[in-house]
Amino acid sequence: MEGDGDLPVSGIASAANAQAGDLAFLDGNGKSVPEISANAGIFVTNEANLQYVPEGASKLVTRFPRYAHSVAALAMYKPRHLDWTGEARISPDAQVHEGAHVSPGAVIGPGAVVGEGSWIGPNASLGPGVQVGRHCQIGANTSVFCALLGDHVTLLAGARIGEAGFGVLAAPDGQRDAPHFGRVILQDHVSIGANTCIDRGVFEDTIMGERTKIDNLSQIAHNVVFGRSVIMAAFGGISGSVRVGNHAMIGGRVGIADHVRVGDGVSLAASSGLFRNIEDGETWGGTPAKPIRQWMREVAWLQKQANPKKNN
Amino acid sequence: MEGDGDLPVSGIASAANAQAGDLAFLDGNGKSVPEISANAGIFVTNEANLQYVPEGASKLVTRFPRYAHSVAALAMYKPRHLDWTGEARISPDAQVHEGAHVSPGAVIGPGAVVGEGSWIGPNASLGPGVQVGRHCQIGANTSVFCALLGDHVTLLAGARIGEAGFGVLAAPDGQRDAPHFGRVILQDHVSIGANTCIDRGVFEDTIMGERTKIDNLSQIAHNVVFGRSVIMAAFGGISGSVRVGNHAMIGGRVGIADHVRVGDGVSLAASSGLFRNIEDGETWGGTPAKPIRQWMREVAWLQKQANPKKNN
Amino acid sequence: MEGDGDLPVSGIASAANAQAGDLAFLDGNGKSVPEISANAGIFVTNEANLQYVPEGASKLVTRFPRYAHSVAALAMYKPRHLDWTGEARISPDAQVHEGAHVSPGAVIGPGAVVGEGSWIGPNASLGPGVQVGRHCQIGANTSVFCALLGDHVTLLAGARIGEAGFGVLAAPDGQRDAPHFGRVILQDHVSIGANTCIDRGVFEDTIMGERTKIDNLSQIAHNVVFGRSVIMAAFGGISGSVRVGNHAMIGGRVGIADHVRVGDGVSLAASSGLFRNIEDGETWGGTPAKPIRQWMREVAWLQKQANPKKNN
Repeated sequence: MEGDGDLPVSGIASAANAQAGDLAFLDGNGKSVPEISANAGIFVTNEANLQYVPEGASKLVTRFPRYAHSVAALAMYKPRHLDWTGEARISPDAQVHEGAHVSPGAVIGPGAVVGEGSWIGPNASLGPGVQVGRHCQIGANTSVFCALLGDHVTLLAGARIGEAGFGVLAAPDGQRDAPHFGRVILQDHVSIGANTCIDRGVFEDTIMGERTKIDNLSQIAHNVVFGRSVIMAAFGGISGSVRVGNHAMIGGRVGIADHVRVGDGVSLAASSGLFRNIEDGETWGGTPAKPIRQWMREVAWLQKQANPKKNN
Repeated sequence: MEGDGDLPVSGIASAANAQAGDLAFLDGNGKSVPEISANAGIFVTNEANLQYVPEGASKLVTRFPRYAHSVAALAMYKPRHLDWTGEARISPDAQVHEGAHVSPGAVIGPGAVVGEGSWIGPNASLGPGVQVGRHCQIGANTSVFCALLGDHVTLLAGARIGEAGFGVLAAPDGQRDAPHFGRVILQDHVSIGANTCIDRGVFEDTIMGERTKIDNLSQIAHNVVFGRSVIMAAFGGISGSVRVGNHAMIGGRVGIADHVRVGDGVSLAASSGLFRNIEDGETWGGTPAKPIRQWMREVAWLQKQANPKKNN
Repeated sequence: MEGDGDLPVSGIASAANAQAGDLAFLDGNGKSVPEISANAGIFVTNEANLQYVPEGASKLVTRFPRYAHSVAALAMYKPRHLDWTGEARISPDAQVHEGAHVSPGAVIGPGAVVGEGSWIGPNASLGPGVQVGRHCQIGANTSVFCALLGDHVTLLAGARIGEAGFGVLAAPDGQRDAPHFGRVILQDHVSIGANTCIDRGVFEDTIMGERTKIDNLSQIAHNVVFGRSVIMAAFGGISGSVRVGNHAMIGGRVGIADHVRVGDGVSLAASSGLFRNIEDGETWGGTPAKPIRQWMREVAWLQKQANPKKNN
């Protein structure tokens, strides 16, 4: 421990987004320079990342910084769904508009809100504090936790909104799941396909912009932000912290690596695997994805070279 | 508006399948010739497609033809599941055979029918009017809407049958979900894997032929028709209106583009991405898929060229 | 029928694992030599496989050996979940620790056990005889059948544990689903993602080793065995009987063909399609997967050759 040990910790955050009073962490082998917010002042770090801690910041040095951070975080924020002990199918502490319809078997947790004209399908599960706007359709057997839904939002059956994302941290006794504290925000007129999963953010939120439409069996990881009117076909796989611009069109079975930025109006051909940022308006394809003409040239060239006798 | 404005509209359909009295639409930029049924007589169209409207047909011209069509369609056909207001877990208007077993937590809507010897798993949701034949196994936490199931049909846990397919239409205020009016038909001895999704048709039906077997986590889009005894492994992704012949074998993670036709007895290697029609009995692989020998030749040739020193 | 027709049959097994008294089967065209346990003594076989039946073993010859085997097997072992006729949401024959929390809508079958401090989410379904250890989190709308879960196991919403795997056998009237008799075993600290499916074994068990972490929307087929502390990202697809060593890291959308063996500490790049065994510690990528350097060399060489003018 070094620095002001009495400094009050008022929140938790990633190093990139920490504000004054937030506890942040630096983990990994120290070989890449971490993004650090100018306001960050309290760190848990390991020896390898000690070099990156800003001068004057308070720091706790440990072999397992993310684990130590998660222990502190879980002491400050108890996962609300695990605190839900009521027996009632519709919690007396939920606010369901009289003009909403709750189907048989649906469960609504304490503090949840359902707006006018919304339809909650059979065997749907809405967790504590979830907010559903007006004229939403929440499909059969869906689950929604840690989420805010605008108006006219549609979830088809089996959609999974707000589960913890996939993150594994090193702890003294082996690998553990990284705890998640963010939410999922689905803006007005967003539609989510059957059995599609949208994970809650780690510290920030996962956000789908207005009128964005996602097909079935897609995966959207923690901290992803989609703009307005994005269209994504089935089996889309969007890794953590990806940004996608407005009006982008993403074909079936496209994968995007973490932290990649995709501009407005971009098109990605079906089955693309994208590992690089794309500027506005471009069309890419292939794995690893590249501009569509280049990819098609490679496919055609290979076919011609490897099959010299025919030209099809 | 042009033509006989008093012509009674008795139904809705795609232009390709419209019968006399059906309201059809023509949308898009007009650059490709649409398929139009010889019986179609009432159209909503935009300027770009005006050229394709048959002589003598009645037509309404608008900037948003599919949107106008959907407004008319939704005025004629109200989605039945949103009309389901009962509170009973098993609707008094459902017909469940006394020799069927309904597990705890299962919900059965009004007008649904469950045949002799069928097992409805815990927390399954059967929507209004769904028909389940005899000796079916409807897995835990499944949902079935707008569907007819024959005898000896098996749905593993979490299967999603009859959700709306993925279609986005242009409306004056931005993009909207295209409404769906068709059903899913699963013939006798069909088996559907866990968390697999089969969307209902737009105007026609989505159909799986007798003894067809689909593995887990697959996606079958609107209007797809599979023949008899098809086998498809996990993560299969079948786009809209695809036709697959009898006894076809589709490997894991195969994708097929919309409207493609696959013949009887075709085999598709795992991970294929198919964009063209295939004749009966052929075996294809790769992305874009091609005859298997050609694909394997390309893979081997590339490996040899790029790695000149060794020959493995 | 040949051999000792009065020999008591005490169990069922695959030919590879049969012990004395177990009924085994040999099916297929006989062109590949089947693996046969030294203790196997009672076979159902077809003509093509007669040559492989060990001398002195009892045998029944039929055109449909796997079908005949399944008929015998189902006469001996009735699927327990179909025998579950109670009406109670939480079976009076289940043992739920008083320090566990069962959320509204959750269903727990007869003979199931839930340990201290475990949380069963809303609308979850635990089948007959399922065992859940201490401090587990069983997500909303999950289903668990035929499974043993250790302590600190996490299932995110919609996970499907213990459904029958995908197997199609030839019967006199056409193709049928192969019955499954094994279990799923999830050891301590295993975490399973949202809408991920882990199938029960055919005769043996499907096993995930301690602290193994699986992301959302993945598919793990029958008889797969993962070691300790494996990490697998979303859309992983693991075919039947695959073995994966300890501390392996499997990227997003990786597919592994059936019976492949992956060593300890192996890394597989995102989107790999693996058809061969890999030794300990190697890093592979591509489809078909190969050592990562070789794959990257091929990708770079193709790009350079097909795009002679630029060098990006």
